[in-house]
Amino acid sequence: MRVGELSRRSGVSVASIKYYLREGLLPAGERTGPNQAVYGDDHVRRLRMIRALIDVGGLSVVATRDVLAAVDDPELPLFMALGRASGTTMTAPEPSEEQDEAWAQAERMLAEQVDARGWQVSAENPAWHTAVGVLATYTRLGDADLAQQLGLYMTTMEEVAEREVAAVVDRGDRARTVEGVVVGTVLGDALLAAVRRLAQQHCSLRLLGEAPTHPRG
Amino acid sequence: MRVGELSRRSGVSVASIKYYLREGLLPAGERTGPNQAVYGDDHVRRLRMIRALIDVGGLSVVATRDVLAAVDDPELPLFMALGRASGTTMTAPEPSEEQDEAWAQAERMLAEQVDARGWQVSAENPAWHTAVGVLATYTRLGDADLAQQLGLYMTTMEEVAEREVAAVVDRGDRARTVEGVVVGTVLGDALLAAVRRLAQQHCSLRLLGEAPTHPRG
Repeated sequence: MRVGELSRRSGVSVASIKYYLREGLLPAGERTGPNQAVYGDDHVRRLRMIRALIDVGGLSVVATRDVLAAVDDPELPLFMALGRASGTTMTAPEPSEEQDEAWAQAERMLAEQVDARGWQVSAENPAWHTAVGVLATYTRLGDADLAQQLGLYMTTMEEVAEREVAAVVDRGDRARTVEGVVVGTVLGDALLAAVRRLAQQHCSLRLLGEAPTHPRG
Repeated sequence: MRVGELSRRSGVSVASIKYYLREGLLPAGERTGPNQAVYGDDHVRRLRMIRALIDVGGLSVVATRDVLAAVDDPELPLFMALGRASGTTMTAPEPSEEQDEAWAQAERMLAEQVDARGWQVSAENPAWHTAVGVLATYTRLGDADLAQQLGLYMTTMEEVAEREVAAVVDRGDRARTVEGVVVGTVLGDALLAAVRRLAQQHCSLRLLGEAPTHPRG
């Protein structure tokens, strides 16, 4: 198909398609003339994935390119593909904050919990930096009590991750597994956060006895 | 203290302080002259909170102002303050996507799960829209199997939310509770996502037999 039909079928504007081609998010089509190329179903599929990662997952264009490179590289170990998907979506606190006492204390707290559970995690996983940053920020804000939930987060997330990893591995095919890892990690964050809000609404209603102003249904 | 000392103590530049004053995130200081004002410890504290919400929580300046207005309004029910904190951090999928069959199907799936668990949630909670949007996107991408985790997300998040809400209510004081809700909701998302990544790394190592390239420690 030509770029016009690709735009119609994917719902992505021609201008955006050209931008993604230039930025290397979308592979080039098959050249049929000096200024013409044809595209296939894989391009439609890839465009949907790009838009999902950007619009729903909140990734930047650069982060999206990085994650898609992991999907496209058949040599990359699954584990690394997972790491790539993880790395792109973490908000990292300012590096200048790293040196203070709150940071060192937060890092000790996390390390103790990780070791106690026998988790094997890489020092280069950006999630480590993010987790320490959030815990240190709690302390700096005088909200250190919020860190009490860390153990519960770890227990529940281990249960979640175990099922998630098993489910994508069950897909069998390597490309489908990596795609599941990328989509499930990036979009799963949004889903998990949304479910947490809904659960908080339900629980605060029960605990505080306040009713939703516009109940659903 | 003068604005210079406020900057030094909070670690926020004078230019940023003036910007937050203009945008209404930071209350004005006490006027001591036509171009001078003095600030107190509350301003230092507020500046730290602003930077935590923006830098660590990833909120926009507008979303931060909105959330802080909830903290400052003593009349706002706790439940509403929670809703305000929830609403600002959700990535909403494009409205144009709302009409398709995948959307309708996703909404039925979520409604069934919510009803089966007896959760009382508001139709206006932006988290509802986000959750449906993610589930619909899974289907559109051909990754509908990822939605199988919804039930597990709900079970674990109910456990998490129950403990989180109880912990902030235990703070007693209304202002401290709302602050705990805001910080715990916004920064807690980042912490939970980070812990999920660490857990995924640990579980994929176990399930795939691949070792981290740079083990921690």
